[in-house]
Amino acid sequence: MALAEAGARGRLLLWPRVVLFGDSITEHAFQEWGWGAALADRLVRKCDVVNRGFSGYNTRWAKVILPRLIGKSASAESTVAVTIFFGANDSALKDLNPKQHVPLEEYAVNLRSMIQYLKSVDITEDKIILITPPPLQESAWEKECLAKGDKLNRRNSTTGEYAEACVQVARDCGTDVVDLWTLMQKDQDFSSYLSDGLHLSTKGSNFLAAQLWSCLEKKVSTLPSLLPYWRDVDHMNPEVSLL
Amino acid sequence: MALAEAGARGRLLLWPRVVLFGDSITEHAFQEWGWGAALADRLVRKCDVVNRGFSGYNTRWAKVILPRLIGKSASAESTVAVTIFFGANDSALKDLNPKQHVPLEEYAVNLRSMIQYLKSVDITEDKIILITPPPLQESAWEKECLAKGDKLNRRNSTTGEYAEACVQVARDCGTDVVDLWTLMQKDQDFSSYLSDGLHLSTKGSNFLAAQLWSCLEKKVSTLPSLLPYWRDVDHMNPEVSLL
Repeated sequence: MALAEAGARGRLLLWPRVVLFGDSITEHAFQEWGWGAALADRLVRKCDVVNRGFSGYNTRWAKVILPRLIGKSASAESTVAVTIFFGANDSALKDLNPKQHVPLEEYAVNLRSMIQYLKSVDITEDKIILITPPPLQESAWEKECLAKGDKLNRRNSTTGEYAEACVQVARDCGTDVVDLWTLMQKDQDFSSYLSDGLHLSTKGSNFLAAQLWSCLEKKVSTLPSLLPYWRDVDHMNPEVSLL
Repeated sequence: MALAEAGARGRLLLWPRVVLFGDSITEHAFQEWGWGAALADRLVRKCDVVNRGFSGYNTRWAKVILPRLIGKSASAESTVAVTIFFGANDSALKDLNPKQHVPLEEYAVNLRSMIQYLKSVDITEDKIILITPPPLQESAWEKECLAKGDKLNRRNSTTGEYAEACVQVARDCGTDVVDLWTLMQKDQDFSSYLSDGLHLSTKGSNFLAAQLWSCLEKKVSTLPSLLPYWRDVDHMNPEVSLL
């Protein structure tokens, strides 16, 4: 039997996907044992994990590009979860980083409008996970800033206000949220979770993957393993098992 | 402006993809600093790297499922490369592992028919990369077999014949090939490239990623970085930059 004919007999498989939407902490999610790679490994044979991370972006820009990334067609059916992970740039200090800074109130409005957009393409709130920015280790990040000839352009307490607003949006909209800012500071020194005071270290990435998994697990629990386990294939008549 | 309206103004972005099609060595490609994760990281903002690895599968089963994984619609436009990486199971010894074994001649025919199928959906030979099975470290793999109550069910010399057939198919069909079996044994002890005598260790995975990259690089060199670098966004009027 020609392969094209075989393909016509078996339906094209719809491969579901998890979309990771965010800034540089998402764009780097497949680096060095990253949280994106960890999720992709856990979800292999169930769905793809696709990276829609944009270094340096804030929610003002993110809400503009979101409809260019996720459209109406087949979205709801194939997208099992979307993470929205911004705030590290929005919370940059206005005076020192006006390009990336987004006022606190607007940050919350932008998050709400992204959730609203996703719902309009049938990605319901139960499929959405907000992630707050991680805490900022000011001394380490200051070194990065100084190396570029800049002053410290973010404050941990300010980032904390954005994290709180993110949690409130999640509560109001009925989505899940991983409050990384709070979780990473809970009864522990959070410095080892960060590589440069702002981005995640391998340990921080593992921490996020574990926290995310507890939200994702219930969203993916009904997904079947795609195509049979090899020991279950009828090797005398494989097409019966595979088409 | 409502987000749905913004989406209508900017076109939905077609996100290209690299498809990794293979057996368990592909299915594990996002584990522990794996070769799939390394490629996904290198190709971030350019294309997705999706895992179509099926542990235990051989080319007889792979050719049946391929049309269920890659269909005609938009394939050529969105798929920039496909790796086909089988042989570790095909080359299992017939007497000791009849379920996974595929005769040498049929293995070559199956590879050819998969290339033929991809061409029929406009994924031309210049987008296809064959990968030969890695060498087998018999003593380590024998331990795995014995632990399951089996005898050693593969031989490195036999796997080498399959690797040679794979290289010949690539030559005949005009596709690229990464001859892992030969490269890993070239002037070096290959044991550190394997975790259990058959699957790749982190070092072996890095080796494969580096070898693959030299083939992939030219296939992806013309891909643009998707959406502008953040410093290039006009922050006074971001929609001009982003839509």
